[in-house]
Amino acid sequence: MTEATHETDDSLPQHLPVQGRAFVVDRARAADVPAVVALLRDDVLGAGREATPDDLAPYLRAFAAVDADPHQLLVVVRDEEGTVVGTLQLSFLHGLSRGGALRMQVEAVRIAATTRGSGLGTALLRWAADHGRRRGAVLAQLTSDLSRTDAHRFYEGLGWVHSHAGMKLDLR
Amino acid sequence: MTEATHETDDSLPQHLPVQGRAFVVDRARAADVPAVVALLRDDVLGAGREATPDDLAPYLRAFAAVDADPHQLLVVVRDEEGTVVGTLQLSFLHGLSRGGALRMQVEAVRIAATTRGSGLGTALLRWAADHGRRRGAVLAQLTSDLSRTDAHRFYEGLGWVHSHAGMKLDLR
Repeated sequence: MTEATHETDDSLPQHLPVQGRAFVVDRARAADVPAVVALLRDDVLGAGREATPDDLAPYLRAFAAVDADPHQLLVVVRDEEGTVVGTLQLSFLHGLSRGGALRMQVEAVRIAATTRGSGLGTALLRWAADHGRRRGAVLAQLTSDLSRTDAHRFYEGLGWVHSHAGMKLDLR
Repeated sequence: MTEATHETDDSLPQHLPVQGRAFVVDRARAADVPAVVALLRDDVLGAGREATPDDLAPYLRAFAAVDADPHQLLVVVRDEEGTVVGTLQLSFLHGLSRGGALRMQVEAVRIAATTRGSGLGTALLRWAADHGRRRGAVLAQLTSDLSRTDAHRFYEGLGWVHSHAGMKLDLR
């Protein structure tokens, strides 16, 4: 199991065809950080908590930390022109619970407004589940703000189960 | 921020006095794995999903992976006799969201039945929040099965907010 999580992501970039569109799933590079931040900001909740695009230094530091961690993968989706139109972050977490299970945590899922409704979100989440299985994860988990009822229906349609309370504690 | 998360846990072991009791918080060692698994099993939900104590191999493999990861910390609490009476797992997750915030995820919180009601759970969760702040985390997060309503009240009493839906997807 340890070996499995140190699998490099040689499978990336990978084609992600969706209803006639030719998207590509790829590991994010530092040059993608402005586009990823723009996706995080373009959101009813994200708008209030992400800095203005000209203050990228903390995001670039965070990217370097994520990129250096073999248990994390920041994913971008590019369209036919190479524009970043989707993103999510995967974290692979070993633990003793559930028979020593490897979990895959999904964070910061965003699809560009111009691409919503295209089926890309469904394809990307299915790709993520397949990727988790390839790395040996037996359980995927995410939390979604209780106000995002459309997102909950979207995940439930993909087989996710709203079985847990997601609790947060501000440490600042 | 990167440096902060590579802080070693030189602060451990650490005394955790609770109402006249002298508990100690410590980093788990391989020799603690049977006791941690016993705590995971001694739970209405855990009983059905943890193997019998004589099949420890997958837990020891998982422990080795957790122990080798500088972003993870498996914690045990020992009582005055050195018996393991509590455990939780902390994962430090860099990410771009929320201004490149470092998150601390809490998993697998268990207090021995013999010690419940002693205030140890409260002290341990407060210690975890302090530990997260020392390592530079600005947000702590956990999920708790929707059936554990007593646990939710416990966390809310410590300042945690049930703001998110916790969703899981079985990858097997």
